[in-house]
Amino acid sequence: MSEKIRQQIEFVREIDKLKHVFRQSYLMNQERHENDAEHSWHIAVMALLLKEHSDEDLDMTKVLHLLLIHDLVEIDAGDTFAYDVKGYEDKWDRELAAAKRIYGLLPEEQKEEWMNLWLEFEEGLTKEAKYAAAMDRLQPVLHNFYTEGKAWRANQVSAVSVRKRLAVLKEVSPALDTYANELINEAVEKGYLLP
Amino acid sequence: MSEKIRQQIEFVREIDKLKHVFRQSYLMNQERHENDAEHSWHIAVMALLLKEHSDEDLDMTKVLHLLLIHDLVEIDAGDTFAYDVKGYEDKWDRELAAAKRIYGLLPEEQKEEWMNLWLEFEEGLTKEAKYAAAMDRLQPVLHNFYTEGKAWRANQVSAVSVRKRLAVLKEVSPALDTYANELINEAVEKGYLLP
Repeated sequence: MSEKIRQQIEFVREIDKLKHVFRQSYLMNQERHENDAEHSWHIAVMALLLKEHSDEDLDMTKVLHLLLIHDLVEIDAGDTFAYDVKGYEDKWDRELAAAKRIYGLLPEEQKEEWMNLWLEFEEGLTKEAKYAAAMDRLQPVLHNFYTEGKAWRANQVSAVSVRKRLAVLKEVSPALDTYANELINEAVEKGYLLP
Repeated sequence: MSEKIRQQIEFVREIDKLKHVFRQSYLMNQERHENDAEHSWHIAVMALLLKEHSDEDLDMTKVLHLLLIHDLVEIDAGDTFAYDVKGYEDKWDRELAAAKRIYGLLPEEQKEEWMNLWLEFEEGLTKEAKYAAAMDRLQPVLHNFYTEGKAWRANQVSAVSVRKRLAVLKEVSPALDTYANELINEAVEKGYLLP
C-alpha cells in the first residue's frame, strides 16, 4: 500500500473528530448545538449559493478549501465563542499548536499547502479569505435569527458586537450586508438580541 | 431586501434539515450514526485531499459542488442504505420528487443549474461525477473498517457487494482501488464483513 495514501487516510480518520466539536449555535429546529463538521458543510454550500453577490472574480475551489478545513484546529483547540473576550486571549496560540499537529499529519507538500490555506483564512487578506470569512460569520447570524436568538440570548450578545463581527460582509457584498443589517434590526425589535 | 437574497436564505434555512438525516454509518468513535451534513463535509475534504490520485484534470469546484449538494434530496427521501435492495426499487422516484421540491426553492437560473448538477452526479458519466462518486463510496468503507464493521455486521453486508459498489474507484484511481481492496480483504479476515 502506498505510504502516502496510508497517511492521507489516517488524516481522513483523524478529522472525523470535528463531528464532536460543538459550537454555540443551535440547529434551526433548536434541538441541539451545531457541530463544526455540519457548520463547515453549511458555509461551503452558502459560498456556492451566494457567490453572485460578490463583485470579485473568486477562485471558488480555494474558497471552498478554506471553508472546509479552517475549523479543523478546533479538534484540539475547541470552539471559541465569537463574543468570548477571555477565550480570545490565547486563541491564536492554541489554534496554531493545533494546526501544526493536525496539518502535520499530512504528507510533506500537502502539509505546507493546507497550513498555508489555514493561515490565509486566519489573516483574511485575500479576496477568497474575505469572502470565506463573510460566509463563516453570516451563517451563525441566520442560525440565531431563526432560533429566536437562542445562543445570543444565552450569552447576552448585542447588535453592536454582531455588526462589528460582520464588518467584512460590507467589503464582500453590499447587498448581503444590507440584508444582514435588516435581519439584525429585526432581531433587536423582537428581543432576540440586545441593542 | 432583495427578493433573490430572501429566496437564497430560505434555501440555507431549509437545508439545515440535512443535519437530521442519519446514515447507516457510525462515527469513527462508534458513538452514534453519522448524519448527511457531516458525511457531505467529510467527502468534500477527501476530494481535495486525494485528487492527486486521479489521472484526470478535474474541475474541482464542480466536484465539490456535486459532493456538497447531492444528498439534499434525502431531506425528503431519507437515506437509502447502499445495500438495501428493496429501498432501491423506488429510490429514483422518491429522490426525483425531492430534488424538484428542494432545488425548486432556488431562484430560477440556480434552480436549473443545481438540479442539473444533481442529475450529473446521479448519472455518473462525467469525470467529475465519477470522482465524486468514488469519494462518496470510499468514505463509508473507511467508517465501517474503523468501527470494526459496525454497520456492515448489522446489515450482513458481504465483500462481494462492497467491491461491486466500489467499482467506480478502479476507473478513477488504480492506487486508491488497490488500497480499498487491501482494506476489504483485511475486513473479511477480521470478521467485519462477510466474504
